[in-house]
Amino acid sequence: MVNQRADIGWQSSKSDSSGASNSGESSKESSRCSTPVLDADRTDRLRDKMKRRIESGDHWFSLEFFPPRTTSGAVNLISRFDRMGSGGPLFIDITWHPAGDPGSDKETSSMMIASTAVNYCGLESVLHLTCCNQTKEKISAHLNKAKRLGLKNIMALRGDPIGEDWVEEDGGFNYATDLVKHIRCEFDDYFDICVAGYPTGHPEAESYEDDLRHLKEKVDAGAHFIVTQLFFRAETFLKFTKDCRAIGITCPILPGIFPIQGYHSLRQLVKLSKLEVPEEIKQVIEPIKENDAAIRNYGIQQAVEMCKVLLASGEVPGLHFYTLNREVATMEVLRQLGLWVEDPRRPLPWAISAHPKRKEEDVRPIFWASRPKSYIYRTQDWDDFPNGRWGNSSSPAFGELTDYYLFYLKSKSPKEALLEMWGEELTSEESVYEVFTNYITGKTNCNGHKIMCLPWNDDPLATETNLLKDELEKVNRRGVLTINSQPNINGKASSDPIVGWGPPGGYVFQKAYLEFFTSSENVTALLQVLKKYEPRVNYHIVNVQGRNITNAPDMQPNAVTWGIFPGREIVQPTVVDPVSFMFWKDEAFALWIEQWAKLYEDESPSRMIIKYIHDNYYLVNLVDNDFPLDSCLWQVIEDMFVLLDSPQVTQDEGSEL
Amino acid sequence: MVNQRADIGWQSSKSDSSGASNSGESSKESSRCSTPVLDADRTDRLRDKMKRRIESGDHWFSLEFFPPRTTSGAVNLISRFDRMGSGGPLFIDITWHPAGDPGSDKETSSMMIASTAVNYCGLESVLHLTCCNQTKEKISAHLNKAKRLGLKNIMALRGDPIGEDWVEEDGGFNYATDLVKHIRCEFDDYFDICVAGYPTGHPEAESYEDDLRHLKEKVDAGAHFIVTQLFFRAETFLKFTKDCRAIGITCPILPGIFPIQGYHSLRQLVKLSKLEVPEEIKQVIEPIKENDAAIRNYGIQQAVEMCKVLLASGEVPGLHFYTLNREVATMEVLRQLGLWVEDPRRPLPWAISAHPKRKEEDVRPIFWASRPKSYIYRTQDWDDFPNGRWGNSSSPAFGELTDYYLFYLKSKSPKEALLEMWGEELTSEESVYEVFTNYITGKTNCNGHKIMCLPWNDDPLATETNLLKDELEKVNRRGVLTINSQPNINGKASSDPIVGWGPPGGYVFQKAYLEFFTSSENVTALLQVLKKYEPRVNYHIVNVQGRNITNAPDMQPNAVTWGIFPGREIVQPTVVDPVSFMFWKDEAFALWIEQWAKLYEDESPSRMIIKYIHDNYYLVNLVDNDFPLDSCLWQVIEDMFVLLDSPQVTQDEGSEL
Repeated sequence: MVNQRADIGWQSSKSDSSGASNSGESSKESSRCSTPVLDADRTDRLRDKMKRRIESGDHWFSLEFFPPRTTSGAVNLISRFDRMGSGGPLFIDITWHPAGDPGSDKETSSMMIASTAVNYCGLESVLHLTCCNQTKEKISAHLNKAKRLGLKNIMALRGDPIGEDWVEEDGGFNYATDLVKHIRCEFDDYFDICVAGYPTGHPEAESYEDDLRHLKEKVDAGAHFIVTQLFFRAETFLKFTKDCRAIGITCPILPGIFPIQGYHSLRQLVKLSKLEVPEEIKQVIEPIKENDAAIRNYGIQQAVEMCKVLLASGEVPGLHFYTLNREVATMEVLRQLGLWVEDPRRPLPWAISAHPKRKEEDVRPIFWASRPKSYIYRTQDWDDFPNGRWGNSSSPAFGELTDYYLFYLKSKSPKEALLEMWGEELTSEESVYEVFTNYITGKTNCNGHKIMCLPWNDDPLATETNLLKDELEKVNRRGVLTINSQPNINGKASSDPIVGWGPPGGYVFQKAYLEFFTSSENVTALLQVLKKYEPRVNYHIVNVQGRNITNAPDMQPNAVTWGIFPGREIVQPTVVDPVSFMFWKDEAFALWIEQWAKLYEDESPSRMIIKYIHDNYYLVNLVDNDFPLDSCLWQVIEDMFVLLDSPQVTQDEGSEL
Repeated sequence: MVNQRADIGWQSSKSDSSGASNSGESSKESSRCSTPVLDADRTDRLRDKMKRRIESGDHWFSLEFFPPRTTSGAVNLISRFDRMGSGGPLFIDITWHPAGDPGSDKETSSMMIASTAVNYCGLESVLHLTCCNQTKEKISAHLNKAKRLGLKNIMALRGDPIGEDWVEEDGGFNYATDLVKHIRCEFDDYFDICVAGYPTGHPEAESYEDDLRHLKEKVDAGAHFIVTQLFFRAETFLKFTKDCRAIGITCPILPGIFPIQGYHSLRQLVKLSKLEVPEEIKQVIEPIKENDAAIRNYGIQQAVEMCKVLLASGEVPGLHFYTLNREVATMEVLRQLGLWVEDPRRPLPWAISAHPKRKEEDVRPIFWASRPKSYIYRTQDWDDFPNGRWGNSSSPAFGELTDYYLFYLKSKSPKEALLEMWGEELTSEESVYEVFTNYITGKTNCNGHKIMCLPWNDDPLATETNLLKDELEKVNRRGVLTINSQPNINGKASSDPIVGWGPPGGYVFQKAYLEFFTSSENVTALLQVLKKYEPRVNYHIVNVQGRNITNAPDMQPNAVTWGIFPGREIVQPTVVDPVSFMFWKDEAFALWIEQWAKLYEDESPSRMIIKYIHDNYYLVNLVDNDFPLDSCLWQVIEDMFVLLDSPQVTQDEGSEL
């Protein structure tokens, strides 16, 4: 626990009463953080993040999505989370559709989509939950599951009654207030709770005033903030906020912004929410109702103008967007408002999960660098996560690959696209080398297709890897099939746009790393060459059967990325660990078959080529420990080729493997 | 526990069967070390260390001491441990004197001397224990206490019966074998056990052969190695070893070497051990028996020659020296044999304790850098020690200073020497400044005495601090009374003779650090100046009442020394920790009074001057986070003096403190 003794008189260093700037008083009873707080957002609760942003006058935005209907829709939505997450939403929220089995384990359920957003996309997420027609047991089961999955925030809603003949039940969930009370009662302070506000009053409320009183009840029952239903005029929201404040509602109230994106979607939404579209808007869009682009442009302009008024009022700390699962309009509105900020700073060099049990996690093996979702998935059952030192981890068991086909481990590209990129038909191992080489260079293959991904890298080459492009091209062409690498770095600023991470004013370091598949003939020569590079180069070499050759001292992990920051302990977020490498190799070898070989017919020559590589090649990783010097790893490979080109030597050593 | 899962099929990386050098096979069930094994000696048991040295053909030596009679004798002996420890003994052993309350808590008891050697001097130590006339309960109590104090090795002896009328007891401890069995029975494998061998047979044994059989029994009962009684001819030992091997004794047998150091000590020892001095030795020493120097020289020469024969025989893995608590002769013999090796390499930048519960300790606050014994003492009750990261430590409570006068916390120098160095009479705060300045420069004071120590530094200036000498002199002269400092280091080789530590092939780093006492006027100006150095400089400023001003982010520790090594995680052995600083300041302020003020009469002007400093000065520490740049800390102090020299400003700001 962080700050577990904070209750015994700790004063933060900010609570300075001495007059000296940036100073504070403390006593030796003080607590301390047990983790380097590289990113306060990682440990703060949503309510605290809001508080900090309000205090600093820093406007935020949030994004609402609904669960997709299909698995491929889910894959798309998750990519959208990654893209829209890069603009810096304070949170996203996922709606709850009682008819769609929202609490199930299906890839498309509200629960699983919200869980994916938290665990795999690292997004602060709010799960909607409706209570009407639900038993307490069912609701508690949903909440317990949400908690287990790492969700910390609930949007408590009544929901629409199913059927016409709904009547209030005694002791049942008749109003959102009942749900808020239930959450507080059963889960104490665990969840941050959001409730819905209706700027024009809830359609079923007896009056606007009556509805305001209901809202006050919901807040008093324990809600932390309010998100409103959409509206079309800034003054509607501002009057509503004023009325809320007048009756004593003090929590943040976030306006629900709906950029009009099309004539039909607007009509449908208005019908569902029983709202009225103001005359001035109708007059604009009715004449252009067949022109989607025109309507969308108008919607963006209308939303931007309304948001500007809202933000200028000083009453609005953040804007909540009803995205309808679309990107363009919302992103454009945010860009025009200056709220879309793609912050190149990274708290750590890898993608963080937002599950609370992972909040102290700050070390990972480098192997999953291009597959962070897979790493998170395979370690989801760990009870605690390595913090400060990988070697301290007491949870070395990685999840098996039986659930391998789970949608978020699959390639984003459909089979046809993969075949275009990786070849409809392979003729030799060399045609595989060419795929790797074209991926590195970004050149099109002989059929005119760019290789945008490989089974081990679902995205184009990282900017950092680009630094190594020329060398990578050369070795891939000769059958050193690289799947992961990083250059050495000797103390660059933590604010460096390419390799920087962590808080400002620090220095980041890396040891050069190279990981590749290559033939057993190459490995025989490589082992000869590596003798010359002791102890400068550490290596692990393994084949699919688990035959492992290494010079790691005492099987210890090797830190290959680390940072030194003002006033903090050392952070070493990436290691090459001999133990986890054996788990990674299962995955790395399996990807040959699962993602590549299976594109082809059983027994087809193409499939047999991939199968041959899978069965016979070795997976090699190399670390150059001398980070202040130019990397010697390219020379190691070069030496290997030289040795291979002198025929006697390779014959002599041929029996080694 | 390290390698706690080693029983489930782990193969070390050394057990290579592939033919490739320095490689090995492993599986993903492998265990891993939970600590960077910077020094295998730190975790291995004595028997394993011997095994490794025997396998590598690397001869060792060990040193026997007896407990001192007086407290000042104990202080001297502990200094001797430090000096003789630097030559690299494999272990030392402490004899057991049943008449001298050997298991008590007295500073001079065998138990406490052995405990000090382990805990404070970091020496592998063997505690002798005799069993005759002792109850099982008493013996077990001694063993339990030894275990609690961190002792891991016992020399099991029968001991001499007290009085003449000793008869064997049924079921009692009649022979050392009984004690060995008892230790094995009650403590399983916890202790490494040594037993005594008699190259000419035990004086009370029925025959030489009978005595050999007894020795075999002792070893069979569970002893790990044998140390022999002293002897005067190499062939005596070699015959004995051959006879031991012949009856199946296979453990290491270490010859007991006694360099003759004086005529009378030789006669006494020979009488006690019922040995006969060979005629050829008698003939040499009888004529020179009044010439101590000549006898000592002969003793050294005789021992060296005998040892050379022993080592050349191939039967002797190590030599055991009966030092009689003296240094010169043993060290000279070892030097001539080439066994005295002062290894400048340090596994960590501070002195390690050999208590097994501290074996994973690898982070400490910098504050106790010159007082490691005090740090070990004040943390002796911790159940576990920070490993990898200070912030993970769950044992923040430091021992109070009530036992402050314990002998190993006292200055090594007597009161008279301290008064000569620090001044018989102080006339002003400036005369204190002068003492600090002379300590730094190594110049004599006005009475012609060199300042060899200060209350916070019981030794002359560290080589590393010498790098900062000029700057330190300048600031001490003006009342910035430095007690701890280190220069910044940006990646020097771990083998660097001055600042290096850790395994070879690595790089060590430091942030510049400066700690000093200074007046509240200076601190007021300093705080003004420090605003310019945000966030480059972290500071903690505290007075004796505990008023603490700091800019440490979230009260986190700041790593100020770290090392990057081949194939390992980052090691960061020294931190500036805001929490432990509050414990250190109690000690740092108390030293003014306990070690300095109390040298003078109550109410004397000298005492009042020290008391004034104690009551009014602040203890300041500064860290320059920008380790790749030249340290700015001198500029900070310079800026402070400049500000102080402009009178208006200091008046304006005078109210800040």
